[in-house]
Amino acid sequence: VCGIENILITSGSQQALDLIGKVMVNPGDRILVEEPTYVGALQAWRPYEPAYIPVPVDNAGMRTDLLESVLRETHPKLIYALPNFQNPSGVTLSNKRRVELIDLAERYGVPIIEDDPYGQLRYEGDHECSLFALDAMKSKTSGSVLYLSTFSKTLCPGLRVGWVVGPESVIRQMVQAKQGMDLHTSTFVQMLAYETARGDFLDQHIQQLRRAYAVQRDFMLALMADHFPPGIKWTRPAGGLFIWVTLPRDMNSTTLLKKALEHRVAFVPGNEFYPCGGGENTFRLNFSYPSMEDIEMGIRRLAAVLTQEMQLIAQT
Amino acid sequence: VCGIENILITSGSQQALDLIGKVMVNPGDRILVEEPTYVGALQAWRPYEPAYIPVPVDNAGMRTDLLESVLRETHPKLIYALPNFQNPSGVTLSNKRRVELIDLAERYGVPIIEDDPYGQLRYEGDHECSLFALDAMKSKTSGSVLYLSTFSKTLCPGLRVGWVVGPESVIRQMVQAKQGMDLHTSTFVQMLAYETARGDFLDQHIQQLRRAYAVQRDFMLALMADHFPPGIKWTRPAGGLFIWVTLPRDMNSTTLLKKALEHRVAFVPGNEFYPCGGGENTFRLNFSYPSMEDIEMGIRRLAAVLTQEMQLIAQT
Repeated sequence: VCGIENILITSGSQQALDLIGKVMVNPGDRILVEEPTYVGALQAWRPYEPAYIPVPVDNAGMRTDLLESVLRETHPKLIYALPNFQNPSGVTLSNKRRVELIDLAERYGVPIIEDDPYGQLRYEGDHECSLFALDAMKSKTSGSVLYLSTFSKTLCPGLRVGWVVGPESVIRQMVQAKQGMDLHTSTFVQMLAYETARGDFLDQHIQQLRRAYAVQRDFMLALMADHFPPGIKWTRPAGGLFIWVTLPRDMNSTTLLKKALEHRVAFVPGNEFYPCGGGENTFRLNFSYPSMEDIEMGIRRLAAVLTQEMQLIAQT
Repeated sequence: VCGIENILITSGSQQALDLIGKVMVNPGDRILVEEPTYVGALQAWRPYEPAYIPVPVDNAGMRTDLLESVLRETHPKLIYALPNFQNPSGVTLSNKRRVELIDLAERYGVPIIEDDPYGQLRYEGDHECSLFALDAMKSKTSGSVLYLSTFSKTLCPGLRVGWVVGPESVIRQMVQAKQGMDLHTSTFVQMLAYETARGDFLDQHIQQLRRAYAVQRDFMLALMADHFPPGIKWTRPAGGLFIWVTLPRDMNSTTLLKKALEHRVAFVPGNEFYPCGGGENTFRLNFSYPSMEDIEMGIRRLAAVLTQEMQLIAQT
């Protein structure tokens, strides 16, 4: 299924997104995305001027029940999906929906970009088969998935070593485009990643990350359950780095951020993850970076801001 | 003249070229280039679909005597220049022409891209002031030069650490574009370059390179003078990595390469350094990479091929 002619090492998977834009996207081309979706992909593709077709996610990932009519009506050039612990929502695409997504993409002839930076950071449940593997198992001739991943979330974020796996014809175009962009990814950091990955260190390190991040996730979720006022919802991610919070419909997270900053706590407003607008009442929390102390202090402060705000709204 | 707001670290200076394309070049925009010019710049800019206005070089670099009429007639968006030991020709822009280039670019309001990967590899004569410095000395308000360089030719080609220096407004746009492209250049290799550059090692290493490359250049030039048949011309670079060979007008270096390869010697045909065609009777030699033994063997083989070819042409 996969030889060296199917792989290109990139300067982080962000560069793979830029390469996809350069090689596959022309102005006005439609890209079907999850809503919300990774803002870095939107930034990478901005210069190539695509249009976005958003498909909402729920707790089992992209709403594949809505997919067929959207594909039929809009004929997108690409489907962009983050199946595992999606950034920003934290949700994971169920196996049933993965199969549906592959089937529909094949039926309508639309290649899938599978962006998987967090797949190894699972804290509970079983590993779901990647879209790439499902597609490869299905037929010998398909090869309609480009799979992206990176060492950034497992080994070191500053290293800038990622990879893209896909059909030889697409990889060949990307190799040529990458030569014009930066000749190649630093051989020094490639060697460093290789030496780290071929021994035991990386596997052990990932197990350590899983244990530590699981504790931080559980701690943050428990604090949120204890302190957040009623009327607020959030996701319970099985892995990854993010929890996604949904406020009552009439609250605005960008306005809320200003008040939160006065209380010395911050989050990422959800609106920027919506390429076609929306999500003003959502925001993203990260549980992997802060210490346990900071998680506690941060959630307590945020809960106070939220409680205050909900009371203000109740009074008006 | 130059604060941190004027500098962006790039993944080699190749990425700075891509960034310039992304931020400054729209389809159909004209870029004035030396003829011949660096083929990697042409590759970097291909996706942005510029048109090229070539200005020939002679032994003192870009023919600035032709520049004014070209600027007046074509109104290019950018001027792209490699003033030191140009790739591929090896020639260096004289100080007089540097001043003329700056004056004309300012008069016609055209920014200059100064690509300087080899400036530190000078084997004879005095360092010429960069276009960036000349421009900065000239007026406080100018800032119309973007200066590009790299550690690739002095420290390590595989590291992929370069830099671009320019007006804050342009650098700010590039910072934003680079975020979409690869987030940032590997912090690990940036630290490595920093640690190497702040001690004595890099300066000493560059002095060592200068001594070694000067010997290799002199050896190759002497062998060429001894063995190449009459009717062939070449440059005598004061630094850098390349010697540029011009064959009689009716010879074709791409055809010649096939015969050379049969004799197990290679060069880069000149045609690809001409964005608008031409240069079929030229080729590029590199003297920094091969060992002294390989230089001797290579030039002897190449001389034999050239002598044979010249005799064939004389007979027809």
